[in-house]
Amino acid sequence: MSYIVGMDVGGTNTVAGLFGPDGALLRSVKRPTEKSQGAEGLLRQLADLARHLIAGQNEPAARLAAVGIGLPGFIDRETGAVDAANLPLKNEPVAARLKELLGVPVTVQNDVKMIVYGESIRGAGRQQPVVLGLTLGTGLAGALVIDGRIHDGAGGLAGEIGHITLDEIPYACGCGLTGCLETAASATGIARQARDGLANGAGGLLAERFPGERRQAITARDVWQAAADGDAWALAVYRRTAVLLAKVLAPAVTLLSPDVVIVGGGVAAAGDILFAPLREEVAAHVHPLYRSRLRIVPGALGDEAGLFGSAEYARSRIQPPPAQPLVR
Amino acid sequence: MSYIVGMDVGGTNTVAGLFGPDGALLRSVKRPTEKSQGAEGLLRQLADLARHLIAGQNEPAARLAAVGIGLPGFIDRETGAVDAANLPLKNEPVAARLKELLGVPVTVQNDVKMIVYGESIRGAGRQQPVVLGLTLGTGLAGALVIDGRIHDGAGGLAGEIGHITLDEIPYACGCGLTGCLETAASATGIARQARDGLANGAGGLLAERFPGERRQAITARDVWQAAADGDAWALAVYRRTAVLLAKVLAPAVTLLSPDVVIVGGGVAAAGDILFAPLREEVAAHVHPLYRSRLRIVPGALGDEAGLFGSAEYARSRIQPPPAQPLVR
Repeated sequence: MSYIVGMDVGGTNTVAGLFGPDGALLRSVKRPTEKSQGAEGLLRQLADLARHLIAGQNEPAARLAAVGIGLPGFIDRETGAVDAANLPLKNEPVAARLKELLGVPVTVQNDVKMIVYGESIRGAGRQQPVVLGLTLGTGLAGALVIDGRIHDGAGGLAGEIGHITLDEIPYACGCGLTGCLETAASATGIARQARDGLANGAGGLLAERFPGERRQAITARDVWQAAADGDAWALAVYRRTAVLLAKVLAPAVTLLSPDVVIVGGGVAAAGDILFAPLREEVAAHVHPLYRSRLRIVPGALGDEAGLFGSAEYARSRIQPPPAQPLVR
Repeated sequence: MSYIVGMDVGGTNTVAGLFGPDGALLRSVKRPTEKSQGAEGLLRQLADLARHLIAGQNEPAARLAAVGIGLPGFIDRETGAVDAANLPLKNEPVAARLKELLGVPVTVQNDVKMIVYGESIRGAGRQQPVVLGLTLGTGLAGALVIDGRIHDGAGGLAGEIGHITLDEIPYACGCGLTGCLETAASATGIARQARDGLANGAGGLLAERFPGERRQAITARDVWQAAADGDAWALAVYRRTAVLLAKVLAPAVTLLSPDVVIVGGGVAAAGDILFAPLREEVAAHVHPLYRSRLRIVPGALGDEAGLFGSAEYARSRIQPPPAQPLVR
């Protein structure tokens, strides 16, 4: 076994990590994502980062076995073509191009899938056969890992939990639907819910801290801070967010019976202010058989989940998986 | 390759089929399920059915390679213990006991999973990587088959779609929850919705055909007949059923991106009266990316889906599955 590089390519920054033969993260680097010189520039940057990491380990480039990439975009599972609105990638065969540049197998997957995969293999979902994960950040998305395999779905489109619609959400979504879960249950959604409440006369700490038009500046973090300080309206916004998430998670638990549900992303840092009502609401809406098994937990790998995920995914795709046991 | 027997063991009847080396159904028999002599009597009946089928083919018992069973119950994936409320099986290791009696590998799975598995391998889901199926009969349940593998979920509990709750369903369910989907979207649920409407003054063909207290006798088939005859209230009941199903299917499509959604069971025989509004409602509530790919179809194997499923499942568990392709 040799070294593997995992990368989490974001619209702003790219983090790349070198993983040793035993799977340990040896070193990582963070760079502003190169977006000014088109796909060519970004691909060169990613190749350079991989070479830089292996060279920094005083190892020859030949000991690099594979590179795994996670990025915010759609990857056509047939052709490998990548479309990413926030990166200079339009119908770009990223894996094939990077393989040419580096001479090793390269995997490219959606970043949320890589985060959940990382948690499933090395984090909060370790040794759990069925892991349902979501990242609650600026937006909301999810992924499902079953027996160590990512569920891609037709067209690689599985997991867009943020675009599940609920009748009780009044907001229009950029996708054309109304009531998409992420318009309310996300960092932007939490801030929006809080602002709407203030506009409709909710008082308390948020009203004091963000008087008048300053309420436009409220972020999910401000709502969390007010909730942590005991503010009734801010706590109500988090409970409402949990109620909405539960309307999607309770059916998902019933349909899939996951061993664990992992909630990551920046909003999950709110801790029990979010998790307590979320666990309560999901438990109230699932059959008793699921209730006793229910585990809804935060991610364990923090910001490095995507690195671990993309490296482990690349590793899984160059090594054969264990065979399924047969009945004798 | 040799012969495989598949069985669909129901609370009333048991159907068993003999499948040839090429997977063709060669013959089948249907018997009232033996429930009067406890687990022992039922297991003897199932073993006898398998022997009867192989003997009828003029083949020695040694050419029987495996037996696959589908039954309405919970199967503990660890211990193989079966609990089935409508069969004399309480914590019974059905597979191990039948293996003793027949000397061949035996698989036991939930009947709905076997129906959907059968459709996925040999029916409406053939060659589709991700198959989401439901059986809309007396009750409602579902199953998910991914790349030819049944998704069991933790505790084998995946797929209980009938116990997903919706706020707009007022009915209490036997499970202790209120608003379980199957209390409204099932044969019993359709009859109940129709009766409730008549009690609240709905007129039309159903009111004419089932005056006064005779409305208690209305079945889903009667509602379907009235709908086929153009009755407004009966059509409204089917549309309402489709709207409720879509509230669960649209999120499931978004989460899983299935290649096909198969709706089987007796209620699916209503055809376009159910399928047209169902397709329309699901399409209206999913992101455009899913809408263009959406396929919601009836099952193709009819009442034999469970036989095909249990036989193919047994076959899959005695033969190694094809290896996953690796990245080079």
